Amino acid sequence: MHDQAPLGDLLRLPVGKPVDLSAYDSGATPGGPGSKAAGLADTARMGKELAGLQERLWAAATAGDRRRILLVLQGMDTSGKGGTVKHVIGHFNPAGCRIHAFKSPTREERQYDFLWRVAKELPRPGEIGIFDRSHYEDVLIAKVRSLAPVGEIKSRYVRINGFETSLTGNGVTVIKCFLHISRDEQLRRLLKRLDTPHKRWKFSPGDIDERALWPAYQGAYETALTRCATPAAPWHLVPADHKWYRNWAISRLLLECLRELDPQYPAADYDVQECRALLLAEEG
Amino acid sequence: MHDQAPLGDLLRLPVGKPVDLSAYDSGATPGGPGSKAAGLADTARMGKELAGLQERLWAAATAGDRRRILLVLQGMDTSGKGGTVKHVIGHFNPAGCRIHAFKSPTREERQYDFLWRVAKELPRPGEIGIFDRSHYEDVLIAKVRSLAPVGEIKSRYVRINGFETSLTGNGVTVIKCFLHISRDEQLRRLLKRLDTPHKRWKFSPGDIDERALWPAYQGAYETALTRCATPAAPWHLVPADHKWYRNWAISRLLLECLRELDPQYPAADYDVQECRALLLAEEG
Repeated sequence: MHDQAPLGDLLRLPVGKPVDLSAYDSGATPGGPGSKAAGLADTARMGKELAGLQERLWAAATAGDRRRILLVLQGMDTSGKGGTVKHVIGHFNPAGCRIHAFKSPTREERQYDFLWRVAKELPRPGEIGIFDRSHYEDVLIAKVRSLAPVGEIKSRYVRINGFETSLTGNGVTVIKCFLHISRDEQLRRLLKRLDTPHKRWKFSPGDIDERALWPAYQGAYETALTRCATPAAPWHLVPADHKWYRNWAISRLLLECLRELDPQYPAADYDVQECRALLLAEEG
Repeated sequence: MHDQAPLGDLLRLPVGKPVDLSAYDSGATPGGPGSKAAGLADTARMGKELAGLQERLWAAATAGDRRRILLVLQGMDTSGKGGTVKHVIGHFNPAGCRIHAFKSPTREERQYDFLWRVAKELPRPGEIGIFDRSHYEDVLIAKVRSLAPVGEIKSRYVRINGFETSLTGNGVTVIKCFLHISRDEQLRRLLKRLDTPHKRWKFSPGDIDERALWPAYQGAYETALTRCATPAAPWHLVPADHKWYRNWAISRLLLECLRELDPQYPAADYDVQECRALLLAEEG
């Protein structure tokens, strides 16, 4: 483990300042171990502590602790949202994780406010929730593709902030990560999907249309990251051209968060010696 | 990997014959590697193949394959249902697992038929669903504690069989495992929970009352395992006094099932070369 400033401080986007994505190097590895090998080793090393802290979070919830974590993953196609779930969330006991990948809204979901389907997938006390895409799509693709009127989109930033603030007030620590990749890196990853037979199912021709809108998406992200970075629920920008760094950084953000929460195994709310005696007596 | 008869054949309870649990040694390790060390090593070795097959199951579903797996875990308190989820399901990408631990029904759930809440938690195509307890509680604790009239319980066996048959007809492979532990082993595990401060949260005085009903529970299990072992959805009896064997055996059952399903990465339903050209042209 590194004795250094919290990674959260390093990756957190400033609140109240316009975000300029071009100012951030997607190939950087801020605060990271110096090499891929060191990064992989350090990530593996974090696994045990993460799993232990998760168990304590879960155990505490059985005694009324309402705290939980919500990890929100956003980023362009191929930025590694799914890979993060596989490699980082794989550290945890899956029984305590509530993972949801948000797709384009179903007919039922479209009948309701955009936050309706999100509220249903929130982590319960003691759980670690993971959103692969999220309510932010409703100010990203919705904006880029004009799926809602301009005034509606504008109001959503405000409603998102209100929603997330109410979550934090209800025991949810919200960790929002924007996985930042370069346009070139996306091209490499899309070509790799095409060139590898067992990866072709991950590709769809629609990905080409989305990629053509790259500048519009970057703009929509800049607006969302600017308007929805709040003290209660800040955004983190995770350079994600290096998969090992992305996994290391998000593991580390979760570790810092769990250490800060410092959940405790609850004390017995029953008489241990009496229960012991009862169990043994029954055997006689 | 062992070149031997499928473990499923070895652990599957015969269909149409009354089950006598006392005839099965909960400390046995049928078909297993000869030692704990070999069992742990073989379980770890299966991890990669399990994860690879799971990815193929998931990929196939994106192209319309509706197949999926439902693993049902039942057993007395401390028999290791939660441990199985942690150690066996931990092999998989958590994004493709749908895990649900059934607790005593909520007020809302009690308004409906007992299968209502179960249907909502079923795996979607491509997923591996895991039930930690299940609809079988409605013929186990419900019978032992007379939570429903006798006639209602009787009708439930039939409805369970109908329900599970309809699942298998809809692409769900149902793997039902009864984790068989001895009364002595339960005592050891309960005492360990009491004697280990960070395990005390797992214990509740109610566990003593349930344990006192051990014979009634064994009887209720025998009835359920007899009446609900069908060719479509058989029961497996997994001796579970040895945790390493339990994890090995369930990993192995899942592996045999996934190999049998043999899901395939779908072929591209688009023109790969054309997409490649489009992506590269755009860069010019």
